This record gives sequence, structure tokens and C-alpha cells, in this order.
Amino acid sequence: MKIEKTFDLPNVAEMQARKDKVMAEMAAQGYDAVVIFDPDNVFWLTQFANFVHERPFILVMDKQGTLNFVVPKIESTHVNSRKVGEVNLIEYIEFPAAIGQDWKTIFTQTVADYSRVGFEENAPYFVVEALGQRGSVTPIVEEARFTKSPYELARINYACELANETFEELLALAKPGLGAMESNKILTSSFMSKIYTNDPMTNYLATRVGVVVQSPNVSHDPHNYTNFMAMDMVEGGPHVAVVNSVVNGYGTEVERTFFLGHVPENCVKPYEVMMEARAIAFDLCKPGESMHDVDAAVYQHLCKHGYGDNFLHRTGHGIGVTGHEGPFLAMGYDRVIEPNMVFTIEPAIYIPGIGGFRHSDTIITSDSGIINLTPIRDSLADLTL
Amino acid sequence: MKIEKTFDLPNVAEMQARKDKVMAEMAAQGYDAVVIFDPDNVFWLTQFANFVHERPFILVMDKQGTLNFVVPKIESTHVNSRKVGEVNLIEYIEFPAAIGQDWKTIFTQTVADYSRVGFEENAPYFVVEALGQRGSVTPIVEEARFTKSPYELARINYACELANETFEELLALAKPGLGAMESNKILTSSFMSKIYTNDPMTNYLATRVGVVVQSPNVSHDPHNYTNFMAMDMVEGGPHVAVVNSVVNGYGTEVERTFFLGHVPENCVKPYEVMMEARAIAFDLCKPGESMHDVDAAVYQHLCKHGYGDNFLHRTGHGIGVTGHEGPFLAMGYDRVIEPNMVFTIEPAIYIPGIGGFRHSDTIITSDSGIINLTPIRDSLADLTL
Repeated sequence: MKIEKTFDLPNVAEMQARKDKVMAEMAAQGYDAVVIFDPDNVFWLTQFANFVHERPFILVMDKQGTLNFVVPKIESTHVNSRKVGEVNLIEYIEFPAAIGQDWKTIFTQTVADYSRVGFEENAPYFVVEALGQRGSVTPIVEEARFTKSPYELARINYACELANETFEELLALAKPGLGAMESNKILTSSFMSKIYTNDPMTNYLATRVGVVVQSPNVSHDPHNYTNFMAMDMVEGGPHVAVVNSVVNGYGTEVERTFFLGHVPENCVKPYEVMMEARAIAFDLCKPGESMHDVDAAVYQHLCKHGYGDNFLHRTGHGIGVTGHEGPFLAMGYDRVIEPNMVFTIEPAIYIPGIGGFRHSDTIITSDSGIINLTPIRDSLADLTL
Repeated sequence: MKIEKTFDLPNVAEMQARKDKVMAEMAAQGYDAVVIFDPDNVFWLTQFANFVHERPFILVMDKQGTLNFVVPKIESTHVNSRKVGEVNLIEYIEFPAAIGQDWKTIFTQTVADYSRVGFEENAPYFVVEALGQRGSVTPIVEEARFTKSPYELARINYACELANETFEELLALAKPGLGAMESNKILTSSFMSKIYTNDPMTNYLATRVGVVVQSPNVSHDPHNYTNFMAMDMVEGGPHVAVVNSVVNGYGTEVERTFFLGHVPENCVKPYEVMMEARAIAFDLCKPGESMHDVDAAVYQHLCKHGYGDNFLHRTGHGIGVTGHEGPFLAMGYDRVIEPNMVFTIEPAIYIPGIGGFRHSDTIITSDSGIINLTPIRDSLADLTL
């Protein structure tokens, strides 16, 4: 299966196909309309990227696929300049505003004619409250995003290409003493340049470039990278490097564990066991398998080698118009893998006092096995610089 | 009134004073506990900055001020490394997870002993649903943040000092042909350097530096700055420049309308009327006045000069641990100004085909009038470069 690469915006047919997916499920579940507040769901259905602030943006899609978008007046021209496909704007004056001109009045009018309206599990209470008895929770839009269209795969593949290039630049720069702030500055600038050179119309609000290198003193603690000035690269390792980005609306994630100069003796076994767990996940992650089972197999392998307590997170997560989304390769999440899902695969071992061992790849599921969109170097030899 | 400047973290007494404010109101409203999901409210009460993703972080504060924080296991060390004051961590295994180890089970156990629990208006439905009948909505924490402590004023003042310096650098660079991407790159880098040089322990997740210059072709459309490659500075104006940032947890906003070389004739009147509206807002924004009235007075002044249709947004918003928060200087928001509130003041005129006219300042309210923390140049003469 050949995956294309593109940075083009979706065409109207692509946008219609997304709505068709949602409408089919609305019909099955008996909804007259769904209310969409999550900015990623809004983006997926309209291409409008909202920077979330206190003014509500609420998309209402009815069972015919008509999109009515309740927005603050100040944002109308902005929405119109970015939307793809037909989107009717329904303005409210401002937030807050006098009663009658406020978002709640306008929104309540917009949904007044529907008797059964779905909303997202993470919808804010103020939206749920405004819907009253007609509202009920449904994962329709979130789940419609679980399998990707050929267009979406091509967008993710393109994002991964830039991330892979950036990652190789990072490995070329790596040396003892290089600070996390410095590498972040150089590489985010380079990544952004690639994005904007290829597509000058790139939407800044749909673009987030993240480059972080955790030094061995913190790499055992995967989400503790807030102290950029205390993360200088050092001789040895393990360093965990992350390029986790959203490129004009499509995500990519590539991460590698690397060493400088030499590999400390106590790092060899956890690196190898992580690589074995990764191979198990790569192999199991195919249509028909349970997502729970992939993660359980990884966990069992780590336990077998004495690393059960060093397993801090699930094997992977979905990726699409976000950097992190459902579905999840996680124990307790008993859902079946389908073709054309996109996951990260990132089984990891974290050992306080030694460090973190994690590679992360962005992969597509297919009947003939995974397609790895981030096939950069991964062996201990190639990652000892 | 002398406003100090600091970039120090809050001490335990400051954190206790915040809890005391919330507890007093909990007692008045009869709550056993409040549930805090909004990451800004969590930060204000704990100093932990969460980058929001699918794993829930839910803070539960009881009426004695005890903080129980339901967090994913993967983040425990991160929370511990950043929290200030006593925070009890209650871990769940992962998201998703097997029933019994999942966030919902753990959270439900955490609130089981309370009979009346408050939640935020923007709390996600899944939290509200988990609370069931014991939950009801309350703005307690949001409103406790409305007036600032001397420490908070000193933090905001410090953030403003860096923003003011950055703004002057921007004006020094300004010239026809300079692109928005280029100015953004130079100035965010300079701003970040100042922040990290002064305080190497700065929390990256509590820091966002925004520098945007809208060229005259888009400055009439205040939230349309997504197309960075089509915003080159030009001879003339009006350009609207924004430095809107959060510096290690405290916000600042400074914005100015500027011209290069000359001021087009049709820009003089809107600039002057905007300056008059700003003076009206500066003058009215004092303890005892209604927030509605400040915005209404601005609007009436614009209407009087024929710009009623060019008024797209309220006069200002609160600013604190965010860049945008309540309270609001907005018509329909009938609340009384108190001392030690911090607002932006930014009455604006937007004219399609001509451009935008907006200055924004970060000010403190006091009984002797506003204290402007962003007193950089503001006259048409000084802003014609």
C-alpha cells in the first residue's frame, strides 16, 4: 500500500465524506443534531482552527449535514477566511453580552427545533446545561475520526516526513553540553521554515512544533520537561528526544532514545527489552486484534524481564488532527483495530536513577501489517553518537 | 501605590491565602468540596501547570482546604516537582485503564464522602456526570481570582516590564517589508531569553510568548492573524502589534497601532477617536464603577463619531494567571469594579479597507485611579516611525 504525501487543504468532497460518516451514525443513533465544541472536532469538520478562549464557538450539525456555527461576531471574517465547505455563521455580539445578544440565547435558538441532540463527553457544562433535556452524550464525531481517509494519511505522512528530517538534524547537532532550550530554538525554527516554505498559507493556529530533548537526569520522568535550563545533553545517556508536532492541522510524533559517546552498561538491557516490546507491538498492531491485547502483550514482556514497575504509560495513542487522540493501545480499552487507523507505538521503560527508554513511531494499520511513517534509525549502535 | 516587581515563586503563605479566599466562599455557599478541572484554576491553587491532554487531572479541595489531586501515575513526579504547598496526589493507572484502576473510579472514591460539591461552569461533562447529584455549578474559584494579591500584582508587573522592553525592540525593528514570521521569530526569542536568563527555573508549560504584527491589509480583522506569510509591514499603516504573553504563570498584554513613514489621511480621525475612547475607559475604570458602564461609555463615544458599527469587541478583559480571564469590561456584565483588579483596556475601531485602531494596556484598578503597567509610547507622533 502506497501512502501519498500532501500538504494541500482538503477539498469539498473530502469534507463532505467526513460529514457523511457522522450523519450515518447520527441516523443509527437517532440524533436530529450534534453539537460540537471540541476545537479538534470543529477543525476536522470545518478546517477552522480556534484558539480557545472564553468566547464560545459551537458547531451544530443537523441530520442533513448542514453546519450552523455559533461564533462571536469578532471572529466571523476569520472563520470565513479559513473554512472549507459550506458553514453558516450565526453571530453573537460578544462575551459577555446583554441578555438576548449573548451566546446562550443565540445557541438556544439554534438548537430549539431539534428534539434529540448529541454532545461530546468533554463538552463544557455550560453547553450541556443550555441543551437541557434534549441533550445526551455521544462519541459520534470522536469515533468518526478513528479511521483515516487516504487524504488524511497523506497529510500525516507529509507531517512525518518533516518530523523525520528534523529528527535527523537533531541527531546531527547532539553533543555534550547542548541545552534543551538551544536545541529547541534551532530545530523549531528549522521545522517551521520547512512548513512555511512549502506552504506559505499554513495556518499558524493549526501548527504547533515541539522539540524536546530530555537529558538522563530527567528522562525517567516522561512528562517532566518543564525545566529547560536543567536539561543539557551529557556524555552517555539515555537521552529521550521528542519531535511531536501538528503541521497545519495534522499530527506527527517521532521519538528516540540516544546516547553520546558511550552506552552505560546498565542501559543495555532496558534498551533491548524496550526494542523487543516495540517489535511485539509492531507485530500485533493489525486489523482484527484488540487494542487491549497489544498493550497487555507489551506489559507482559516487560514484566517477564523485571520491568513491570517501570511501565508508566500505555503502548500508544491515536494521532490525526491532534497530537494525541483516541483510540488507545491501552489495557482496559477493549476495541478492535481497523485498517487505516494511525497510532503511535511507544512502549517504554522508566528507571529512576538511570533514565528513560522510549522510541515512538507514527504508524498506519493495514491488513499487511503496520506502515511505519517514521522509519528513522532505531538501533542502539545507530543511536550512539 | 507602589507596585513591586518579582519573578519569585509564591510562598506557602500566598498559597494558603488563596485557599482561604476559596474556603470562605465555600462556607458561605455551603459546599463540602469544590472540584477544579480548569488548568488555570489548578495552577493558581497548586502552581502545577498541566499541558491539557486526554488524561484528566482533577483537583478536589475540601472545606478545610485540603487539596486532593487525582492525576495519572505518569505525572506524579512532575506534579511533585512543581507544586507549591501541600497537595495530596491520588494516582490512577492510565487513561484509558481497566475498570477499578481508571480515573473515574478513583475520582468517584475521592468525592464519595462529600454531599455537596461545586464544579466550574466550564467543567467537562464527564466530570459533572461522575459527580452525579452531589454536584452543582459555582464560580467560586474563578471569582476568587478576580482581585489580585500584592504578590500577584508584582508578578504581573514583572511580566509587563519584559513585554514593554520587547515592544520597544519591535518598534526599533519595524520597517517596510519585515514579515510577521521574521519579527515573531526575533522577538519571541529575545523575550524568552530575558525570561530564562532572569529565572532559569521558569516553567516552560506556564510560559507562552506571543508577538504578532498585523499589517494594514488584515488589521481590521483582529483575530485573523493565522496567515503569517501575508502580513509584511508596509509604508503607512495602520499596523496593529501585539505582545500578549504569559511569563511563568502570569499574563501581560501590550498592543499598539503604529505607522511607517506617514499616516494615511483617513487614519487620523479613527486614531484620535480610539485615543479618546481609551481616555474615557482609563478614567472610568475605578472602584465602585460598573464594568458595563465603562464599555457602554466607550461604545457611546464611538457611536457619536460614527464608529458604532466598527466596534467589534468589549473594552477589556481580566488578566492574571492567564492572558484572558474574567471579569470583563463589557456591556451586559453588570459587576462592580474593585481595587486590585487587573484589566486590559483596549477600545478599538476596525474599518474594512482601512485597518484596525487599537492600543491595549494592562492596568491595575486602585482608589486613586488606574495604574498602567504598560506605559510605553502611545501618541500618533511617537508611533509614526
